[in-house]
Amino acid sequence: MKKQTALFAAASTLLFMPSLTLAAPLDPKADAIAALRDKALNGDDIAYNIVEGLTTEIGPRQGGTDAEARARIWAVNKLKALGFDNVRVEEYQMPTWVRGEETAEITAPFPQKLAIAALGNSGSTGDAGLDAEIAYFPTIDDLRAAPDGSLKGKIAFVSHNMKATQDGSSYGAFGPARFVGPNIAAKKGAAAIVIRSIGTDYHRNPHTGNTNFEPGVTPIPAGALSIPDAENLERMISRGKPVRMKLKLTPQNIGMQTSGNVLAEVKGSSPKLPIIVIACHLDSWDLGTGAIDDAAGCGIIGAAAKHLKSMGQPKRTVRLLWAGAEEVGIWGGRDYGEKHANEPHALAMESDFGAGKVWAVDFRFPASATGLRTRIISALAPLGIVPRREIAGGGADVGAIIAAQKLGIVDLQQDGTKYFDLHHTPDDTLDKIDKVELRQNVAAWVATLALLANYEGELKPEPAQ
Amino acid sequence: MKKQTALFAAASTLLFMPSLTLAAPLDPKADAIAALRDKALNGDDIAYNIVEGLTTEIGPRQGGTDAEARARIWAVNKLKALGFDNVRVEEYQMPTWVRGEETAEITAPFPQKLAIAALGNSGSTGDAGLDAEIAYFPTIDDLRAAPDGSLKGKIAFVSHNMKATQDGSSYGAFGPARFVGPNIAAKKGAAAIVIRSIGTDYHRNPHTGNTNFEPGVTPIPAGALSIPDAENLERMISRGKPVRMKLKLTPQNIGMQTSGNVLAEVKGSSPKLPIIVIACHLDSWDLGTGAIDDAAGCGIIGAAAKHLKSMGQPKRTVRLLWAGAEEVGIWGGRDYGEKHANEPHALAMESDFGAGKVWAVDFRFPASATGLRTRIISALAPLGIVPRREIAGGGADVGAIIAAQKLGIVDLQQDGTKYFDLHHTPDDTLDKIDKVELRQNVAAWVATLALLANYEGELKPEPAQ
Repeated sequence: MKKQTALFAAASTLLFMPSLTLAAPLDPKADAIAALRDKALNGDDIAYNIVEGLTTEIGPRQGGTDAEARARIWAVNKLKALGFDNVRVEEYQMPTWVRGEETAEITAPFPQKLAIAALGNSGSTGDAGLDAEIAYFPTIDDLRAAPDGSLKGKIAFVSHNMKATQDGSSYGAFGPARFVGPNIAAKKGAAAIVIRSIGTDYHRNPHTGNTNFEPGVTPIPAGALSIPDAENLERMISRGKPVRMKLKLTPQNIGMQTSGNVLAEVKGSSPKLPIIVIACHLDSWDLGTGAIDDAAGCGIIGAAAKHLKSMGQPKRTVRLLWAGAEEVGIWGGRDYGEKHANEPHALAMESDFGAGKVWAVDFRFPASATGLRTRIISALAPLGIVPRREIAGGGADVGAIIAAQKLGIVDLQQDGTKYFDLHHTPDDTLDKIDKVELRQNVAAWVATLALLANYEGELKPEPAQ
Repeated sequence: MKKQTALFAAASTLLFMPSLTLAAPLDPKADAIAALRDKALNGDDIAYNIVEGLTTEIGPRQGGTDAEARARIWAVNKLKALGFDNVRVEEYQMPTWVRGEETAEITAPFPQKLAIAALGNSGSTGDAGLDAEIAYFPTIDDLRAAPDGSLKGKIAFVSHNMKATQDGSSYGAFGPARFVGPNIAAKKGAAAIVIRSIGTDYHRNPHTGNTNFEPGVTPIPAGALSIPDAENLERMISRGKPVRMKLKLTPQNIGMQTSGNVLAEVKGSSPKLPIIVIACHLDSWDLGTGAIDDAAGCGIIGAAAKHLKSMGQPKRTVRLLWAGAEEVGIWGGRDYGEKHANEPHALAMESDFGAGKVWAVDFRFPASATGLRTRIISALAPLGIVPRREIAGGGADVGAIIAAQKLGIVDLQQDGTKYFDLHHTPDDTLDKIDKVELRQNVAAWVATLALLANYEGELKPEPAQ
């Protein structure tokens, strides 16, 4: 009997399960999700219009500058116009470095100018510049192997062989020439350092980006040559004669300045459910207009959240974080993590890898959310998006809040094959945005968000006890 | 009998024609031409090495500057090393304009910097620059239609809609914004002019190039915005508010300077036959390293002439003209035309349209050279080159000697679809050269030259009486 009862119970569970367990996860229904997704895919240009507006009406907007402050005003107006709730700015202070003059010129044996841009946190040569012999290192490892003091009075030149990768992983492999090269060169006594731009294009546009010096290490002048210039310099060096460069970089540290995050929300109907935070960054490097990095991300999450609203109030609140000062040290993301450390969050997503088509989805989910995972995968499949065996990692601006609260994460992975052609260069401009690919991003985002924001179960991979 | 005799004579003509008439036009034999062509196609990198050397060891080499003087020394050494006869420099004097500082910045309503380069012969804003309202003209015809005086105190902005064309003809259609726009704007009272770069790319590299002012018209500051910047400015203008630009261009005229042509020869065995002159230009604009414009041309004609020598002495002398100061006013070509006006020439060819594959051949031949034309077409067919119904026009540096002596011409037409992506920009660098396409050029040139230089018949379309 007990067995029978058990069997009956099992049978009744089987009978009732469709209406019981399917009722919760299938709200919203799959066809509603598909309709929302396809409307975003085929329909409008909310995302493009955000990118167009930000690049045209603001343009370059480096963290801590007046241009970034104008961008915050622009963003508040735009997010209010889109009808979001609780649009506001959260300010913070940050140390600010700004570019000065920058020129590089081979003085011997083959005099000619080279295209260069200072790296963020570079030291200054002073107005007189410096004229010194080049010490060439084909890779960062060759620089690491140079004896201490061997670079005294010289300009280190560090090259590399970065190639484009769909997942952008070659940035990690070759980026250290920029990330740590200047610090290493400074410690070995170099007068300055120039690197081959961390990029994959062949245009005379250097790729800037931050570098960092250890406490106690005096920053040396540090610049990136465009890739055609770096290869030209390598050819000069291959002739076997000493090569001398006159370098002038006059950046300045202008002290503590105001920056800020812009926040907005789609308010959920269940205020007790921990919120979902979705992020992009509002600031850009100063050389381009920050179309792919990262107006595109703000366009994608802004458009997706707007579409989400169109299907009625979700259960969870979805918060948009248009972060400040990402490029120059992730100041906005860190400030958000601190200020919101005690506010319950469930999950984070970020769009900060350009405007290329989403090709894969990664998750960091609890085991209990397997059904949700399956639903998201099904909703994304018609967009040509596949799940991988990778664990989602989030992004720079949600890094602090993820670490503080051990959040769930969904990463919609974009095709980054062309991303490092443009990354941190003057060429990061509106014309590089493909409207069709941008809409595919929005479609993927809104389908994912609609499922997440209406899911009442646990989203953190390690639920709080 | 007579008829029989005639028939016999006709028959004997038919019998003997192969050895008689084929003996003259078929020297060199078709298989020797094919072998020479295919050796160039598959074999070596003489042309590439010239481009590599000139761009690496000299780089930018504007007419009238020290860099162009270094290029002449480099060229003499290279042409001697290649074993040519009678290598020498023919100097001349020319007025010289040089670039200064150049910045453009929108000051209202959307402050941001734009990428700009001064046009050759631009006036100066002075060190203080000028800040003025933009007067927008979508096309040069709109500027032409503006009332006299209506531009007083304004910066004219002239745009256009140039698209890439295989034969480069859109340069002629859209180029007037640069060629004559500044002169027109100056006459209508404009304080300055900026144009959308005459080009077809989407990079932040403005396209420079000469403009000219009529005698009596004071040159106004004249610059080219990169195409992404021009489109950004158009979007700003479309918002409907007045747009103001701060413009600083400080070029200078530095008076008469020395420039020169570099000449070299493959001496012919029949000194009484008029010579063939083949031209490229050694100078480049100052922004790039002049790889496609026109180190490639010098590489192509240098390599072709070197291959020609390898088959033994041709009948006619072939003279290489590596012309000076083409970009800034065709000073070298004009000087050549004057100094060599009385030396008998038969035919001219020029390579000055990049390094793209040759796809067509045009002729300006006398009717008597139909057989030669057929032989050239046959020799080029395996390279994917077809004859057109166009009449060959030569090029800038052979223009003066063609006009003076009414020369025959063969034009090996290159695919120019990508040429105006790079033309006169910082992006004109070695990496843009496709070695395989460059070799195809050399193969086409040497096959053509070998037939021309061993042809003893008339080559001028209107033989002298």
